[in-house]
Amino acid sequence: MLDTVAKKSDYKVVGTRPIRPDGVDKVTGRARFGADLNLPGQLVGRVLRSPHPHARLVSIDVSAAAALDGVKAIVTREDFADQPPELTAAGEMMLNYRDVVRNVLAREKVLYEGHAIAAVAAISAAIARKALRLIRVDYEILPHVTDVVAAMAPDAPLLDEAMITAGVTPTPTTPSNIAKRVDFGHGDIDTGFAQADVIVEREFRTESVHQGYIEPQACVANVAEDGQAELFVTTQGQWIVRGHCAKLLGWNVNRIKVTAAEMGGGFGGKTVVYLEPLALALSAKARRPVKMVMTREEVLKATGPTSAARVRVKVGAKKDGRITAAFAECAYGAGAFAGSPAGGGAMCAFAPYELEHVATIGLDVLTNRPKVSAYRAPGAPIAAFAVESVLDEIARTIGVDPIDLRLKNAAKVGTRSTYGPTFAAIGFVELLQAAKAHPHYSAPLPAGQGRGVAAGFWFNVGGDTAVQLTLNEDASVTLTAGTPDVGGLRASLGMMVSEELGIPLDKIRTQIGDTASLAYNFVTGGSRSTFASGMASVEAARAMVKELAARAAKIWDIPVDAVKFEDGMLKPAGDNAGKYEPMSIRDIARQMAKTGGPIVGYATLNAQGAAPGLAFHIVDTQTDPETGKTTILRYTALQDVGRAIHPAFVEGQMQGGVAQGIGWALNEEYVYGADGRMQNAGFLDYRVPVASDLPMIDTVMVEVPNPRHPYGVKGVGEAPIVPPMAAIANAVARGAGVRFTQLPMSPPRVLAALSGQGAR
Amino acid sequence: MLDTVAKKSDYKVVGTRPIRPDGVDKVTGRARFGADLNLPGQLVGRVLRSPHPHARLVSIDVSAAAALDGVKAIVTREDFADQPPELTAAGEMMLNYRDVVRNVLAREKVLYEGHAIAAVAAISAAIARKALRLIRVDYEILPHVTDVVAAMAPDAPLLDEAMITAGVTPTPTTPSNIAKRVDFGHGDIDTGFAQADVIVEREFRTESVHQGYIEPQACVANVAEDGQAELFVTTQGQWIVRGHCAKLLGWNVNRIKVTAAEMGGGFGGKTVVYLEPLALALSAKARRPVKMVMTREEVLKATGPTSAARVRVKVGAKKDGRITAAFAECAYGAGAFAGSPAGGGAMCAFAPYELEHVATIGLDVLTNRPKVSAYRAPGAPIAAFAVESVLDEIARTIGVDPIDLRLKNAAKVGTRSTYGPTFAAIGFVELLQAAKAHPHYSAPLPAGQGRGVAAGFWFNVGGDTAVQLTLNEDASVTLTAGTPDVGGLRASLGMMVSEELGIPLDKIRTQIGDTASLAYNFVTGGSRSTFASGMASVEAARAMVKELAARAAKIWDIPVDAVKFEDGMLKPAGDNAGKYEPMSIRDIARQMAKTGGPIVGYATLNAQGAAPGLAFHIVDTQTDPETGKTTILRYTALQDVGRAIHPAFVEGQMQGGVAQGIGWALNEEYVYGADGRMQNAGFLDYRVPVASDLPMIDTVMVEVPNPRHPYGVKGVGEAPIVPPMAAIANAVARGAGVRFTQLPMSPPRVLAALSGQGAR
Repeated sequence: MLDTVAKKSDYKVVGTRPIRPDGVDKVTGRARFGADLNLPGQLVGRVLRSPHPHARLVSIDVSAAAALDGVKAIVTREDFADQPPELTAAGEMMLNYRDVVRNVLAREKVLYEGHAIAAVAAISAAIARKALRLIRVDYEILPHVTDVVAAMAPDAPLLDEAMITAGVTPTPTTPSNIAKRVDFGHGDIDTGFAQADVIVEREFRTESVHQGYIEPQACVANVAEDGQAELFVTTQGQWIVRGHCAKLLGWNVNRIKVTAAEMGGGFGGKTVVYLEPLALALSAKARRPVKMVMTREEVLKATGPTSAARVRVKVGAKKDGRITAAFAECAYGAGAFAGSPAGGGAMCAFAPYELEHVATIGLDVLTNRPKVSAYRAPGAPIAAFAVESVLDEIARTIGVDPIDLRLKNAAKVGTRSTYGPTFAAIGFVELLQAAKAHPHYSAPLPAGQGRGVAAGFWFNVGGDTAVQLTLNEDASVTLTAGTPDVGGLRASLGMMVSEELGIPLDKIRTQIGDTASLAYNFVTGGSRSTFASGMASVEAARAMVKELAARAAKIWDIPVDAVKFEDGMLKPAGDNAGKYEPMSIRDIARQMAKTGGPIVGYATLNAQGAAPGLAFHIVDTQTDPETGKTTILRYTALQDVGRAIHPAFVEGQMQGGVAQGIGWALNEEYVYGADGRMQNAGFLDYRVPVASDLPMIDTVMVEVPNPRHPYGVKGVGEAPIVPPMAAIANAVARGAGVRFTQLPMSPPRVLAALSGQGAR
Repeated sequence: MLDTVAKKSDYKVVGTRPIRPDGVDKVTGRARFGADLNLPGQLVGRVLRSPHPHARLVSIDVSAAAALDGVKAIVTREDFADQPPELTAAGEMMLNYRDVVRNVLAREKVLYEGHAIAAVAAISAAIARKALRLIRVDYEILPHVTDVVAAMAPDAPLLDEAMITAGVTPTPTTPSNIAKRVDFGHGDIDTGFAQADVIVEREFRTESVHQGYIEPQACVANVAEDGQAELFVTTQGQWIVRGHCAKLLGWNVNRIKVTAAEMGGGFGGKTVVYLEPLALALSAKARRPVKMVMTREEVLKATGPTSAARVRVKVGAKKDGRITAAFAECAYGAGAFAGSPAGGGAMCAFAPYELEHVATIGLDVLTNRPKVSAYRAPGAPIAAFAVESVLDEIARTIGVDPIDLRLKNAAKVGTRSTYGPTFAAIGFVELLQAAKAHPHYSAPLPAGQGRGVAAGFWFNVGGDTAVQLTLNEDASVTLTAGTPDVGGLRASLGMMVSEELGIPLDKIRTQIGDTASLAYNFVTGGSRSTFASGMASVEAARAMVKELAARAAKIWDIPVDAVKFEDGMLKPAGDNAGKYEPMSIRDIARQMAKTGGPIVGYATLNAQGAAPGLAFHIVDTQTDPETGKTTILRYTALQDVGRAIHPAFVEGQMQGGVAQGIGWALNEEYVYGADGRMQNAGFLDYRVPVASDLPMIDTVMVEVPNPRHPYGVKGVGEAPIVPPMAAIANAVARGAGVRFTQLPMSPPRVLAALSGQGAR
């Protein structure tokens, strides 16, 4: 199948590193992010949030706030109709609108500190803040639970008193905070463990971490007098925002036109709505544009970080490294509403490996915290931290090289995956071989330093996609895609179109369309944008070539199948070969009108054929016994990237994933007090890595093209955040002699562990 | 052929009068017009204009202005490369870029008062104005000519010393201000005049009038650091603006994204560029957004009004009213650069009539005035004023009813038009019959009042058009058209799509796309937008139905031709009839993803089959001999409108045309002093009609559907401005006893005429 993808050497544009078209604007401050639009008469919208982690909302009195001069609109739960639950027939953990409406504005109860209760639009921020203080809320305080393990206890306070765990047979009779259980695997693990020479069983804990995007949630809503609405917003999915808002407001979808701003980071966190329905509802009431921007505190307290979790792992292996059985239970905190990535964790936990006996469980656990959201490879990093740590212990125990251990068990094309499907394309073996051969892996390691390795897996996805390609009168083209550009998408799509049409990249302008200028597109996420929008762009370019050939045929008065497209030129072929002077795209562009009007290539598809991304990281660390600080000395990230369309962007994705993984491993965590309130809701206390925390992160792209994509593309954005926590823990275990089963490995925890006190 | 268009009674939506979607926003001030966008860091752009009507530009010194604090960029002729002339092979009077670049910024000479010389971008309007005063321009004053007849004199000052009249054989050897002559007609007029019982020969004069749009030219240009540019602008054609700007700036077309603002009137005047290339050039230099808005004085002095003209008409007829010969010479002022609508005037002059011997001449004459621009039915009203006045004199002379005279000579389907082509569709006879039967025509007329009638003709046009129709997940649709909405286009297109898809109008949102979100569209003008974008919308809807049927076939697993679309439902047909439950569009929309992805209907075409629009007006006037004021007492406008999609909008177009025609007839004119400067450059002195000047204008839509349009559409916007000047002149001739051959019939001229002094 691989020969359906052209050889790399056949490309003129794909694989080169042109300057990204949006780069200069971004570094000079001219790019327009979510907060950079202002409309005439615009109001300021602010949100009243709960100070309590769990309370019944007895009453909300907005009368004093509404009477304040300069207040133009207030919305509360009264302004949003209730929504029926929309779980699938199988009761799957999906986003459901019953929860979405409650997360946007609390109804019966507030379920976490920061839960939105009301929103105000006023002529100034000062008046809006004053109005919030005038809203009287009568709370009936309830006991709360923020810890995922405590939440599973039989006597835990219940967030949803009617919650019966789904996915368990027989159906439980008593409610609990466990929303759902999912099971994956095959074979019989008892049989497998019975065959093992060595078994390692461990329990791991991780804390919530936030995506930490620099740009807070922000939007401007403008509802016209006749109800037609515009929303300018920082989002990973303008159609998703449109659909959610229309649903919550009870409007036709086409009433809302959503334009995606340039995005200052999203990483999965900008795939859901928070402010957007409020801004629209306020604008509709006030009959004025309304702008809403979150503070950093709001971002941390009221948008979705990823889960805090407990993961239990048990792996058995033969002395030669062959794994005989593998088990993992991923109990992931969902926050206030069901929908943690526990399923993703359970699916990815052992996905890189070919196993005869494997079982994984995902548990979705409610806690009095903000509803979690997607964060780069949702669920996978937590599971990989646990599994790849245990594999490291096994390798050390039986004395096998950790890469050899993985090679011995690596999934290949044709392997039945641990979560079900059989792999049609997977480059894990090539990746491990590249890692083993890399100079970093064999470099001498000074005393006191540790070297760790770990693997990571992410599915990658396709989905609904549309692009439009229009030919301009000077043979330049405009490409409109619908997946917001988070990592150079505009350049990458333009490069594929340039390759197809044989026209230079500077004659291709790629833009991200709004919801009214293009057919439906699913979010940027998963990783799908270069894969799916790339596939659609290629299809659109080929549709345009077909139309160009039809126009040439019309001009020459020959059958359309007697025209071929070659080297950017339309040429008469077959019996007509040589009979007419070849025409360039420009020649046809000049004659568009008289040959039938404008020329377009349009493609819509539900992209199929995504292939998994595999990452493998090598890291050297040194832990200072005086301060407990762990320094990352050298980091090499290898990845099966499919085909790198724009290698610099792929490397950037890999480095970015590693940087976030290092933060997760060493410093980032949500700290909750006994009062159920977050104690570090700011970037001074919630510590993301800064440049001085990181070495240069070396990258190695292993290109195993995806045979089901015209340019061999796989997703690249998620896999690199999966290995770092385990790789660093494995390095620390070898360098500092302490194996951590809890994240982050922050200085206080390290000091406690080194002194033999406290949790590892 | 007519049966290809459905009967009116078959429609559910077309022909009704829903509220226009943009109406409320416009009347509440929320619609965003050209001046309503502001960007962060935006500069103010202002233009230095010539005070002289004709002068050589010896030097331009911007050094003092450039040194002024707060001035960020200055552009002059040095910033624009010269452009080669781009006349057609036949040397036709077309817009050519050699002239466009000179009109945007004067090069060798200034050619009219108000001619742009330099533009400045500064941090405030005050600084920009100060900077303009600091620019030192050295002029060598030249003699000027602003009168079209004086400009044709052999000793007239020449605007272009190298101008040799095109279209004359043999080619003249001496230069003149006559840029071009065009000839139309057939038969032999000498033979025809020899057969006449009565011959009337007259010479007419008209002055320049301006479209008088309320919104001045305005735009915001934003050139990004990497050269990608956005332009927000009030325009009738975003692609035309894009093309002109790219050409003048030497950029790839796709570097510029042009968004059309809501437009506060255009009427043909917003089809060319003035500020736009300057704003882009200033923004590129300053690296900041630049906003430019004209003052009313600039609009009047430096944008294109229509021609001042001299028209000579000679018509011969038999006593029974049969016209035996007709001749007209239309000498139209072009302003500073070639390209008056003299050709249009010469073509339309006798176009409503079937004539055996006819000859018309158009002369395009340069004068030291702003370059004329299109104004509603360009050229036709001036010629019709002359021709329809002469026909009235003939009718009175031979004692024939003026409508009968026209009926006797009316063009019909199959008539060879006076300008060449044979009419495939024309409803003039039906229109005249409706006029004759109208109560207004037979209403008693008190003494002192006059009743006049006149006909008007306009071609209507098609051209390059593209629309996109996307299906949303809730079965609402979004329609993107590219022709700016000047008279309710969004509603009209939505209505045709509603009719096609059987979904209600409120589930269809129609928007006007920018140049990057849709394939090329020619301007709104001519009249083409409802005709051509309507044709494309219907084609797009039918393409969507085809795709819906394909999805239904996939779901049912039957051949696609076994699916029919009826009453908004997809149904199994033929052998499969009744085998499956019919599905609504919503049913398919819900299954878009799993049946292949998003669903779109896209149509691009060069619309053919435009049919001419005919108007016939009846007006009663009374002229006050004390003041010279003529009052319009009653006005009935009849028109062959094809099929009225949204009758209220059609009536609005008819009323608007009449209102502008009344202004042209009675008050509006450019007044030039001997110094070549306009003396009335403001709405106090250039007097457009206000509400109190106008009676209720009654409208009668005669619907003779265009067989070459799926909904029978003809253009409706231009024809109604053609008859008013002649109809009013004819009424005044009958009521006040003075025949005017010069416009406007303003009080001073009427008084002079009534006292037997001065020009009529």
